[in-house]
Amino acid sequence: MDNNTLLEKLNSLSIEEKIGQLIQLTGDFFEGDMDTVVTGPLKKLGLNIDYNVYNTGSILNITNPEKIIRLQTDYLEKSIHKIPLLFMADIIYGYRTIFPIPIAQACSWNYDDIEHAASIAAQECYDEGIHVTFSPMVDIVRDPRWGRVMESPGEDTLLARKYAQSVVLGIQGSNLDSTVPANKIAACVKHFAAYGAPVAGREYNAVDMSEHTLREYYLPGYQAAIEAGVKLVMTAFNTLNGIPATGNEWLNRDVLRQEMNFDGVLISDYAAIEELIMHGYAEDEASAARLALLASVDVDMKTAVYANQLKNVISGNDHMLELLNEAVYRVLKLKNDLGLFEDPFRGLQETVQLPTSSVLSDEHKKAALSLAEESVVLLKNEHELLPLSKHTKVALIGPYAEENSTLGMWAIKGEEADTVNLKTGLLKLVDPDNLSVCRGAHLLPLDAREAFDKYADKLAVETSAEEVLLHEAIRNANEAEVIVLALGESIYQSGEGGSRTNPTLPEPQLKLLYELSLLDKKIILIVYSGRPLILTEVVGKADAIIQAWYPGTMGGEALANILYGEVNPSGKLAMTFPRSVGQIPVYYNELNTGRPNLKENGFYRFASRYIDEVNEPLYPFGYGKSYTSYEYSLLSISQKEMKKNELVDIHISVSNTGIYDGKETIQLYIRDKFASVARPVKVLKDFKKVFLQSGQTKIVEFSIHEEMLKFYGREMKYKSEPGEFDVYIGSSSQEILLSFSFILLPEDNHE
Amino acid sequence: MDNNTLLEKLNSLSIEEKIGQLIQLTGDFFEGDMDTVVTGPLKKLGLNIDYNVYNTGSILNITNPEKIIRLQTDYLEKSIHKIPLLFMADIIYGYRTIFPIPIAQACSWNYDDIEHAASIAAQECYDEGIHVTFSPMVDIVRDPRWGRVMESPGEDTLLARKYAQSVVLGIQGSNLDSTVPANKIAACVKHFAAYGAPVAGREYNAVDMSEHTLREYYLPGYQAAIEAGVKLVMTAFNTLNGIPATGNEWLNRDVLRQEMNFDGVLISDYAAIEELIMHGYAEDEASAARLALLASVDVDMKTAVYANQLKNVISGNDHMLELLNEAVYRVLKLKNDLGLFEDPFRGLQETVQLPTSSVLSDEHKKAALSLAEESVVLLKNEHELLPLSKHTKVALIGPYAEENSTLGMWAIKGEEADTVNLKTGLLKLVDPDNLSVCRGAHLLPLDAREAFDKYADKLAVETSAEEVLLHEAIRNANEAEVIVLALGESIYQSGEGGSRTNPTLPEPQLKLLYELSLLDKKIILIVYSGRPLILTEVVGKADAIIQAWYPGTMGGEALANILYGEVNPSGKLAMTFPRSVGQIPVYYNELNTGRPNLKENGFYRFASRYIDEVNEPLYPFGYGKSYTSYEYSLLSISQKEMKKNELVDIHISVSNTGIYDGKETIQLYIRDKFASVARPVKVLKDFKKVFLQSGQTKIVEFSIHEEMLKFYGREMKYKSEPGEFDVYIGSSSQEILLSFSFILLPEDNHE
Repeated sequence: MDNNTLLEKLNSLSIEEKIGQLIQLTGDFFEGDMDTVVTGPLKKLGLNIDYNVYNTGSILNITNPEKIIRLQTDYLEKSIHKIPLLFMADIIYGYRTIFPIPIAQACSWNYDDIEHAASIAAQECYDEGIHVTFSPMVDIVRDPRWGRVMESPGEDTLLARKYAQSVVLGIQGSNLDSTVPANKIAACVKHFAAYGAPVAGREYNAVDMSEHTLREYYLPGYQAAIEAGVKLVMTAFNTLNGIPATGNEWLNRDVLRQEMNFDGVLISDYAAIEELIMHGYAEDEASAARLALLASVDVDMKTAVYANQLKNVISGNDHMLELLNEAVYRVLKLKNDLGLFEDPFRGLQETVQLPTSSVLSDEHKKAALSLAEESVVLLKNEHELLPLSKHTKVALIGPYAEENSTLGMWAIKGEEADTVNLKTGLLKLVDPDNLSVCRGAHLLPLDAREAFDKYADKLAVETSAEEVLLHEAIRNANEAEVIVLALGESIYQSGEGGSRTNPTLPEPQLKLLYELSLLDKKIILIVYSGRPLILTEVVGKADAIIQAWYPGTMGGEALANILYGEVNPSGKLAMTFPRSVGQIPVYYNELNTGRPNLKENGFYRFASRYIDEVNEPLYPFGYGKSYTSYEYSLLSISQKEMKKNELVDIHISVSNTGIYDGKETIQLYIRDKFASVARPVKVLKDFKKVFLQSGQTKIVEFSIHEEMLKFYGREMKYKSEPGEFDVYIGSSSQEILLSFSFILLPEDNHE
Repeated sequence: MDNNTLLEKLNSLSIEEKIGQLIQLTGDFFEGDMDTVVTGPLKKLGLNIDYNVYNTGSILNITNPEKIIRLQTDYLEKSIHKIPLLFMADIIYGYRTIFPIPIAQACSWNYDDIEHAASIAAQECYDEGIHVTFSPMVDIVRDPRWGRVMESPGEDTLLARKYAQSVVLGIQGSNLDSTVPANKIAACVKHFAAYGAPVAGREYNAVDMSEHTLREYYLPGYQAAIEAGVKLVMTAFNTLNGIPATGNEWLNRDVLRQEMNFDGVLISDYAAIEELIMHGYAEDEASAARLALLASVDVDMKTAVYANQLKNVISGNDHMLELLNEAVYRVLKLKNDLGLFEDPFRGLQETVQLPTSSVLSDEHKKAALSLAEESVVLLKNEHELLPLSKHTKVALIGPYAEENSTLGMWAIKGEEADTVNLKTGLLKLVDPDNLSVCRGAHLLPLDAREAFDKYADKLAVETSAEEVLLHEAIRNANEAEVIVLALGESIYQSGEGGSRTNPTLPEPQLKLLYELSLLDKKIILIVYSGRPLILTEVVGKADAIIQAWYPGTMGGEALANILYGEVNPSGKLAMTFPRSVGQIPVYYNELNTGRPNLKENGFYRFASRYIDEVNEPLYPFGYGKSYTSYEYSLLSISQKEMKKNELVDIHISVSNTGIYDGKETIQLYIRDKFASVARPVKVLKDFKKVFLQSGQTKIVEFSIHEEMLKFYGREMKYKSEPGEFDVYIGSSSQEILLSFSFILLPEDNHE
């Protein structure tokens, strides 16, 4: 449909029909036939079937292709305007083929694979009739207490930008003409803005930060998604500096639409327009509707605020009517970009009949396996205990030994039955005679269940007594040469609403580790979690530690491949592991302060430090071990003084000096030594992940250009400043192997 | 000296002499005779005696009256310009008569007594020749990990404002004509700005916050000091949103001088101008000098940056020369306000000869006792265990049982020998036969010493084995009816540079408590600390808990009076006690969020809460128990609708319904239910501390006026907004006993 036809379509709509386009109802409304849903949910919201259901613009989280066909057909029959429904769903890191959770993906530093994973999720969505997914989430997070760490690309802005770009391209394709091609769907970047920084890591809590910090660290991820053409943006639940994001005109209109040039659909997070009232920002629903529309929020997810209030809000107000038309136009344009006016089913009818669905195909599972292998981070490997020989007698112990609930909380279409657990994965490689398996401990203390609300029912019911489990574990351990101990937090301790004041391994598992550490056996600890756990107590009791995160459908196979050296681990932390809760937030790109805690000063009282703790984090950003070793050497630097339009080209050689092939992520950090706004001690500016066979050397090239030197000045102008910069190249933010300085020259006014 | 003469004096100075006025050297330079200090410290700084020492404007932390006379005399003899030196010192909560630390004082909610305490500190300073003290510190703090909690009035802005005002009036008097009268000295409010909010509670760490939060919560304390006529402001060490406070032109010139109308002396914190380099903000010393002068910093505390760099910085630059002249004028004006041109010794020569010093007078000690009694907070008193009868056999146990090091780290002139410790205090009231005393445990783990840097030497050397101490404690406990257990953190775990990731009682003391709790004895726990400690583990093991803070010279006597009911405790917390480190920061005036954790929802997953912790703090802001009980009733509300220029007058009656006389602090909180910037769930707006005899009832009146309803809107305009407000009146921020709502009417444009 061309734009003029679309505008005619818009103009042909009644006010009710226009408002309808801005309404999104959840699946509950459509669980029965459309005709039978008038009672119940609808009534509760004060909606009625003619005005509302058959005017509704979009539907949330209906993911059954037959149902989608049925609902769309019914809707198009009964609605007057015949504008197809949009089907949107929370497909965050895989539809049915579940990839590692995003924080794990970010540890792969492999953005081709991340893009590929997103394209597979989109393909499966497309095959099953979903039009829009609420991904990527690119909220920067520095606080592991927060539950949604699992959905975040971590603490670094460059990684968030790369993640945003890769996922949007994977989901949408590079839609230069704004249409969304077959096999692709529309992406939605979230949560605008700064949702990942709640006070004290407490879910939904207030966010408060300087505009500098907002622009410098938090906004670029969203910006990258917009630059990649993302079709939708989702507002955040939180207040930003006292003003709820969902009703924040400055944030959404001035920044998002004007400055960042976003002209797609802005959708509220779940019920966030109605929550403007609870925030103490809107006095009532009418005010909430008005404030949200003023803030250019196009779609009201899940509540009846727009449905019941917008008509009065715009009545007799030309400006508000204009805003309504703008919003409706954006929704119609999205439908048009998806080709829904031409085919409201986007080929779904044919797919279902054939059937040709790619869901959970071998190729998809292979991609999930590969990304899981790259996401896992080897934290410790004393005396090169890993990789294991297949002849070693292994006791696999722990609540995660044969646990299929390892997909993370936001895999709504993922099925545990599809999951390769650790035991299954190991048995693909080793003789059953060399592997014993037992649970060893309860996943959670038995009295912890009630805190999980409706998810309590999903927790495994622990039937055996703890002593019995422990006894079996000790027996198995004694009969084995090595213990592989699979521990972790429950997936329901992580994810939305999963804030923890004390993010450690659950108590029964700590006890199991302690008891096993008393035996004279090597322990390889595998940690499943949705966040960096506090592992300080644990580190000394394990000889090797593998951070598995929630590794997705193929997780068990990936971990098995790593344990036995079929794959050499290459993940690097996308988020700092704190040594204690009392260190939070701790992140690599901190400011120097006026009194940095310099090692050479020892325990100097008046330094920026804690007096009761080793001040460094347990594992720094960018950290991750390999089975092999790498050596870096600096070959050339093109110049040590650059003008703004010039480049500093750097050539280094990286050699694999060990006996295993491997992938190394070479990280380049820059420090702006003096600036009109103090700059961090280092900022990640580029990286290269390269494969090196044992003994192989490769030349790796980096180019520093002015864009990498820019920051937001005190007037919020994005610019570079001449002066001296330090460049650090290394294998983590702490293991700097090469460094040099260069000068950015002032601009010559005479040129 | 009139202003014209002062200006003539200014104009008569050479550039070197002018710069000299902006230099402050520490006492080290003057430890010997002036003539002999050319080597050593001076040389290190690149200073010389003619240019620098005899041009220096002020001296830091020399507190010996004879030395002050000698130095001033020598200086006036040898300097060409004959402008007297200023003597400044860190006299924070008492000179020799040490009052409770500020966080404790703030718990008294008795601002007459706080003002009186400040006036006594000023009197003792005056008597010993000090001209300026660096008090009050009014940095709002929400994070007990930070060490300087002890110097802060806590988390609330109203309390910070009252503290600022009271301390400035106490130190300076109400100097309407700008002179500082005899017996008074000049005050210096600090640390401008927001020093109390370092990231992760780590000393000197970056501060990042929205301008809204800065203005709404952090600036009013400083503003109150300025309104009270404070003569000096001290800059903060920290960056504020990336820009070091000490070089922050916006903060110091636009906000402090222009908006807040401060025309006094702005002094850097210790070496903070030089630290602009370490911050990565100034490239070198010249740049640091330039940036600080641009930011209107008048005095360079302790470094040679101004001394060595300013001459070049202003050379040939009329604007910078003007700024220099302004700065020097402000210093000269301060000297003139202090009357130093008339008498450079401010009567010190006579005082020393007579001698008439009031230092540590009985009257001063009485005031210190009284404020200590009001500062102590009774946190728990199960089964009304307290007060004790004098006939009860008491075992006083713990490292603080007879510890004199209870003055806190910033009592530079306080002497342990003057201190009444707990044992001494108790023996003033009870028969020695009813009191056994022993240490019970080491104050700190033996291996903790080195972390205390130069203060390690000041820690008590622990000679006895822990088992011997414990054995004695158990024996004493068994022979007594009640255990009074005096525990706490070391004063060196608190204060500047005393950040702790895990602010609990030290391990050996926790062990002692645990062992004693196994006996069948009542335990009264007294906690000495400079911050809210995490007491969650401890609460269940003690029958009564008294928060003593560091109670100053008369602390032991104050605590004895409270233990035996000579005084009924009346302190109320000025800062929230968190339940765990993972809850930090937790404070009473939080935002509601869009999904508050409502009790009626039970364990609702998608609420703003932690899933692994009781979400309420351990003890809320405003909390404190009494030996008696109070009842509140609402008598009248003048109107439930007010116009902007009207008042809502509230009369309540408060009755003492128990058998002890007591003081109750009645707290009035307001919630603005809907506003263009979300407002906190409650904000303290007024309070009254009233004395009530047993059985007595008093009428207490509050008036709500528009000023109490104002806040900073999104454009940083300070204003009220019409609408509904809730009023809560109670005995803490959680124990609300009376509440009602009223409406602020919109302005009628026709009137």
